[in-house]
Amino acid sequence: MIITVSREFGSGGRELGKRLADLLGYDYYDREIIEKISKETGFQEDYIEKKLDQGLWKSSPLAFRRSFSPTAMRQPVSIELLVMQTKVIQEIAKSCQDFVIVGRCADVILAQYHPLKLFVYADMESKIRRCVDRANENEHLSEAEMIRMIRKIDDQRSKTRAMMAGGEWGMKEGYHLMINTTGLEIKALTPVISDYAKLYSGGIV
Amino acid sequence: MIITVSREFGSGGRELGKRLADLLGYDYYDREIIEKISKETGFQEDYIEKKLDQGLWKSSPLAFRRSFSPTAMRQPVSIELLVMQTKVIQEIAKSCQDFVIVGRCADVILAQYHPLKLFVYADMESKIRRCVDRANENEHLSEAEMIRMIRKIDDQRSKTRAMMAGGEWGMKEGYHLMINTTGLEIKALTPVISDYAKLYSGGIV
Repeated sequence: MIITVSREFGSGGRELGKRLADLLGYDYYDREIIEKISKETGFQEDYIEKKLDQGLWKSSPLAFRRSFSPTAMRQPVSIELLVMQTKVIQEIAKSCQDFVIVGRCADVILAQYHPLKLFVYADMESKIRRCVDRANENEHLSEAEMIRMIRKIDDQRSKTRAMMAGGEWGMKEGYHLMINTTGLEIKALTPVISDYAKLYSGGIV
Repeated sequence: MIITVSREFGSGGRELGKRLADLLGYDYYDREIIEKISKETGFQEDYIEKKLDQGLWKSSPLAFRRSFSPTAMRQPVSIELLVMQTKVIQEIAKSCQDFVIVGRCADVILAQYHPLKLFVYADMESKIRRCVDRANENEHLSEAEMIRMIRKIDDQRSKTRAMMAGGEWGMKEGYHLMINTTGLEIKALTPVISDYAKLYSGGIV
């Protein structure tokens, strides 16, 4: 079984995915994908990660937006990286039986394998708290800046997904279970979601 | 703790609510609400149920719709019943500690009690199968008619909710957990959701 975890930035989706893989004894794919792309391209891992997070929609100054057409605003800075990422994920699915994969539109890319599709979200206050708790690089951000960052990253995820699939990111029809982590400890939540995943041991219908 | 179960018609939400109450040893409120309204009004239970399901939006012939203004289309056939239902549900919450309640906008009506809010849904094929399996009254419907009925009932639920609350029916922000029952047996799902509910034993934040 493949479990895909889509998540809002700061909702604890990555932690849940990692813990779920540990508890179920599944493989977990995250950093390995970036490492593979790095080996094939020679680009630095951080650069690849940043470009993939950014999707195809690099933000541009307002003056630029006003004077150019909407299509000119969309700069295909990382289409090759997205294509390469898709290939790497498909190779993993071919060679590996049970695994958890977080983000990267894996639910869409691996649709043919009928993955169990989770979506993890939380209210803004809870996401900010999580970001503050874990971040080094973000700790100099004000609350307003952090909200802007969270919204921006989620917006980019949503757009990248819209490009790759018909369905919308975060709409219930595309998922088996949508989990609001507001007020929940991911560690305590994990065994419940693990039991839930076992309901599908006969495969996804 | 109060658990509210909002659900799409045919998704198995009512069965999940009932089983969850049994397993947790909670009270379960459904038919009792109609019985209470019946005693207070003298109306028959079936009539009350039908009127409440219908919400405020009685369908009207197309000719009527064309010749009248949009506001004229909305006939307040059951506003008193909705108000009475709200009162009955609030009385239950005052006198009862732990219970499960399915539908009836209870998540909105009981917001001050911070209920655990579940939303149960499924894909159309699965909802049709469930309706066929359980129904006597619907068994004479064709598949197309059944799809129309399911859509209509959900549309009325959505409109009634929109009237009572700002938030939209079936949007993830309004719920703690959204469960897609497609391909799942409700009986097997119940213990998992019961364990999930216990994560909130300290109360909802």
